[in-house]
Amino acid sequence: MIITVATRLVYDCRPGTHLMAVVQVARSSDQQIISERLTVAPPMHLGEETDGDGIRWLRGAAAARLDLVYEAQIDNGARQLLPRAGRQWHRSELPLAVLPFLLPSRFCPSDLFVRFACREFGGITDGVGRVMAVADWIATHVDYVAGVSTAESDAAHTFTLRAGVCRDFAHLGITLSRALGIPARAVSCYAAELAPPDFHAVMEVFIEGAWWMVDLTRLAPVVGLVRICHGRDAADIAFLTTDEPCDLVEQVISARFA
Amino acid sequence: MIITVATRLVYDCRPGTHLMAVVQVARSSDQQIISERLTVAPPMHLGEETDGDGIRWLRGAAAARLDLVYEAQIDNGARQLLPRAGRQWHRSELPLAVLPFLLPSRFCPSDLFVRFACREFGGITDGVGRVMAVADWIATHVDYVAGVSTAESDAAHTFTLRAGVCRDFAHLGITLSRALGIPARAVSCYAAELAPPDFHAVMEVFIEGAWWMVDLTRLAPVVGLVRICHGRDAADIAFLTTDEPCDLVEQVISARFA
Amino acid sequence: MIITVATRLVYDCRPGTHLMAVVQVARSSDQQIISERLTVAPPMHLGEETDGDGIRWLRGAAAARLDLVYEAQIDNGARQLLPRAGRQWHRSELPLAVLPFLLPSRFCPSDLFVRFACREFGGITDGVGRVMAVADWIATHVDYVAGVSTAESDAAHTFTLRAGVCRDFAHLGITLSRALGIPARAVSCYAAELAPPDFHAVMEVFIEGAWWMVDLTRLAPVVGLVRICHGRDAADIAFLTTDEPCDLVEQVISARFA
Amino acid sequence: MIITVATRLVYDCRPGTHLMAVVQVARSSDQQIISERLTVAPPMHLGEETDGDGIRWLRGAAAARLDLVYEAQIDNGARQLLPRAGRQWHRSELPLAVLPFLLPSRFCPSDLFVRFACREFGGITDGVGRVMAVADWIATHVDYVAGVSTAESDAAHTFTLRAGVCRDFAHLGITLSRALGIPARAVSCYAAELAPPDFHAVMEVFIEGAWWMVDLTRLAPVVGLVRICHGRDAADIAFLTTDEPCDLVEQVISARFA
Repeated sequence: MIITVATRLVYDCRPGTHLMAVVQVARSSDQQIISERLTVAPPMHLGEETDGDGIRWLRGAAAARLDLVYEAQIDNGARQLLPRAGRQWHRSELPLAVLPFLLPSRFCPSDLFVRFACREFGGITDGVGRVMAVADWIATHVDYVAGVSTAESDAAHTFTLRAGVCRDFAHLGITLSRALGIPARAVSCYAAELAPPDFHAVMEVFIEGAWWMVDLTRLAPVVGLVRICHGRDAADIAFLTTDEPCDLVEQVISARFA
Repeated sequence: MIITVATRLVYDCRPGTHLMAVVQVARSSDQQIISERLTVAPPMHLGEETDGDGIRWLRGAAAARLDLVYEAQIDNGARQLLPRAGRQWHRSELPLAVLPFLLPSRFCPSDLFVRFACREFGGITDGVGRVMAVADWIATHVDYVAGVSTAESDAAHTFTLRAGVCRDFAHLGITLSRALGIPARAVSCYAAELAPPDFHAVMEVFIEGAWWMVDLTRLAPVVGLVRICHGRDAADIAFLTTDEPCDLVEQVISARFA
Repeated sequence: MIITVATRLVYDCRPGTHLMAVVQVARSSDQQIISERLTVAPPMHLGEETDGDGIRWLRGAAAARLDLVYEAQIDNGARQLLPRAGRQWHRSELPLAVLPFLLPSRFCPSDLFVRFACREFGGITDGVGRVMAVADWIATHVDYVAGVSTAESDAAHTFTLRAGVCRDFAHLGITLSRALGIPARAVSCYAAELAPPDFHAVMEVFIEGAWWMVDLTRLAPVVGLVRICHGRDAADIAFLTTDEPCDLVEQVISARFA
Repeated sequence: MIITVATRLVYDCRPGTHLMAVVQVARSSDQQIISERLTVAPPMHLGEETDGDGIRWLRGAAAARLDLVYEAQIDNGARQLLPRAGRQWHRSELPLAVLPFLLPSRFCPSDLFVRFACREFGGITDGVGRVMAVADWIATHVDYVAGVSTAESDAAHTFTLRAGVCRDFAHLGITLSRALGIPARAVSCYAAELAPPDFHAVMEVFIEGAWWMVDLTRLAPVVGLVRICHGRDAADIAFLTTDEPCDLVEQVISARFA
């Protein structure tokens, strides 16, 4: 699909604040950037680097105000939907680069969930079947509710509370997948038709040698997702990081099928 | 039933260590002490006080060694088993003294479980029915496993881990009951036929104006339970508390239908 | 001192919601109620009961709206300020009714803090000296910041975060006091000169056979405090509890030296 | 220095258990392998792969017993000790590959420690000075005690408890370093003169463009350390991972200056 995305981030900062912004769409094989434009005002030097995964890091020192506008048109047609079935690979078969996504992380303490995950989903042998069962379980047992979680909440909190937002849903899905031995990571993305529009967080699982996106909130169609960044969990995929507190002035995100 | 219980606790202490032991059976209306004997060697002054609930507190300063032997025969025939049905009282109907047992405590963070408890058990209207459903849920979803929990583990940990020992089972049951609006407390007791013999922890719920014991581990028959102490959770019902670390030399507990 | 206090609580509820309000000043020996008036509109039956500590519990079923107004004038002159020195009693000397306040509770996991407390404050032998050292430590190491804690935050969270509000300050002080073997509890109160006016939470410690209030935030003078309720921690001293969510319409609190 | 290391790991497994062992010394620029020998009995296929950091991953499916013996002689003379001073780089100056080590991880929730770290160490401007202050703080405030922490304990637990083992010390140091903006990671290593001999965990910080090892327990000289693996925290550097529980039969580790 062709998706048009845009964001404007305006923050007031102490001049000299070091910042890092990851808002540009990733240069990954599952999507193609048709056009894009980044403008930063007042003019400041924001260095852009692309890492081995195609994630693009903007870094630099801010002036008193950061006013960043990004617009892009993307074709995500190369991204495949999760197949109907697929074998989960053994730990000893996985590419080394995938192994970290089997391990517990700040917001995904999968080490605590092995017994639950195996009791609840262990009887399913197919990898995709397990992921679908995890997704169904979350849809059935967790409510989408804003305000019950914080930036400190991990998947164990969400599992107890049974409520949260997209980030919490992703964390719980990732946690349960890892506890089942399925590599899983968090993806920040633009999401067409998400209401209200915002940056979105989804899960991505590694099955049959490839990564597949799954939106556990079921609030946005996967065909409308545009990858920005991925990592072990929300700690790794912040769209803006500063070394001093800054004041939000305006933050607008949009994404639509174009 | 007539139950014969005994315990011997031997600890090495720094002389002068202040200690508190709650090992004698409670003087409560649901059980009658037929005979009992307490001996402490070397002879030391352990003051005994009985509180308003019939719980008996032994307190004093230890010699280099504490060797405490307690034996008793109890008739617990006045204790009733949980009836088949019973109305859960509203918060505004409960005796004031019962209200604290509706509130979260150190190991029973019931405030975090309201959504889960209401989703899972809220459809049941009868109070006893809810307690039975909680007990069945725990029996189905939690494994009795030693070594996975510590003295710091709370019910949220057990809920995630899905494993624990009697104390953890009691904490989870109490937590879920309170989240449903049913007062619940922890009871330490002697338990006939418990194997291996040990102090036991069970839940007690307040329904239809009375307290009812429920053993969530299902390891010992409720008719074989003899009450020692009750409180909000394990923090309140330790059988031995000292103000300095002491070394366990020997600890024997027994309880049998006599 | 003579203090004039008032509060108005207006909530929209589903008719029939059971509620419990603890907003009247306590009938305790450390303060005298000169006059008071409670009005509830629309007229509804709110039963009032006073427990053994003089805490007053209003309970009943709400109409569609609860509009509660309470005004009182209190002489708290019988309350003494913490003396300059005072011996901490041993566990075996304390009244039985005080023992629960030595134990960990939902928001005060004092069991985790024994090593820290003894390392930091253990060298001080006087009980009041220890409490003063705890109060100084908190004033030095913890910032008063709104918004960093939630209703779920316990003292371990505050200890790590080094920031919180009055409730968090009280919890940390209580936790450290208990870890040192000093009974401590949370008190909800009206506080003259607190800005902005609000219900306030302070710590109360048991030394030399009496309870003494300590405001760890140092935001309100202790001579301006009027006791409403006390308990193990914030879980026990909520001013309003309902069995269904209600919507806050208005909440005004005032307290002044009169 | 020339160091001779050896380990023997014997485990009983269900045949077919997939396992991953990371016990060989890393092929990194700060150490040179003079000789080494790996034997596995009964003969089984354990594939060895070396990742971009020189970490060596042995993976395969076990027979009924795994008996792995590894011996090596290493020259770690190329490893430099932490210099006396060194500038901490800004987030926007760091190599992209280093950024993950600034972020919170499973056992190092550095996001919770920013206020504490800045209050306690923020006044120090030199990067090495900060790390040394963190190391001194840990040495002063945390006791080396076995048995108080578990495989689930994170740095917030250690910070509250003020006690732990090498892994906990490393986690706390890493957490505080990250909270100060200094990239930090966990290193598993062989450690000459460590008593009793065991795998050791130390911290490694990134300052002035290089990684430097720091042993926060001060139990082993840094000149006697041989790198096996590094990662975000203990979750990433396990020496043995299996997809089913296995029984430890024997585990011997040795390391000495040769």
